[in-house]
Amino acid sequence: MNPVTTVLSLPVADLDRSTRFYRDGLGLTPSDPDGSVVAIELPNLSLFLIRQDEYQTYLDRAGMPELAPIGSGACILSAAIATRDEVEQVASRASSAGGTVEGPAEHDGSFTAYVRDPDGHLWELVHNDRTADASGAAE
Amino acid sequence: MNPVTTVLSLPVADLDRSTRFYRDGLGLTPSDPDGSVVAIELPNLSLFLIRQDEYQTYLDRAGMPELAPIGSGACILSAAIATRDEVEQVASRASSAGGTVEGPAEHDGSFTAYVRDPDGHLWELVHNDRTADASGAAE
Repeated sequence: MNPVTTVLSLPVADLDRSTRFYRDGLGLTPSDPDGSVVAIELPNLSLFLIRQDEYQTYLDRAGMPELAPIGSGACILSAAIATRDEVEQVASRASSAGGTVEGPAEHDGSFTAYVRDPDGHLWELVHNDRTADASGAAE
Repeated sequence: MNPVTTVLSLPVADLDRSTRFYRDGLGLTPSDPDGSVVAIELPNLSLFLIRQDEYQTYLDRAGMPELAPIGSGACILSAAIATRDEVEQVASRASSAGGTVEGPAEHDGSFTAYVRDPDGHLWELVHNDRTADASGAAE
């Protein structure tokens, strides 16, 4: 297949809570809710946060069972971050805004923080030489 | 945060099986395996399929419990498809290559097939007027 574009959808329990976290915790720019969906555009990723009752209708159409508990680590959203400082700052903001944070810590030559959003969806904030080079950041 | 780029990672049980399915079933171009990872580049999405033992090490670092059964519908990968024919063809190929397919069928003005890969990860192949317009396809 040759998709025109792609979108990743994740179920969330409370659109307002998610909007606050992605705005205040991760410093992103969620759209105003469109019905049961909030959209967030990131480099190389269009993310839709979908209220879980609506999300379930898609699983129903797919012939899938009831949604398992949200946020079980079934996917990881990795964000390549230009500087160590930004990793630390985002992890700190995310924690203050209701996220669950592990690290930052050194793993395999990268400086990495793991951040779970209020539903438990897992983000990995990664800084290493490659992400610094890609951003043109000098440290 | 201002990521340089983003990557979506999904756990898989068998890299070779996944590679065959994404190549033969979805008609995509998986990379050669790099250790325990196969990368697939799509418009607006970098997808890493990671062997589940390796994937678990990331969950461990994140302080998360053992991975729940893979493919519980915890995320949906939506691909905007230019034509109805392509939706039908990809759904048929995917079924022959070991995927589980529902549809295609009309839902809310879109012609949609749901395809689960061999691990159960859910793809939604969507054709509607918007995806046709975006592709410049005439039907």
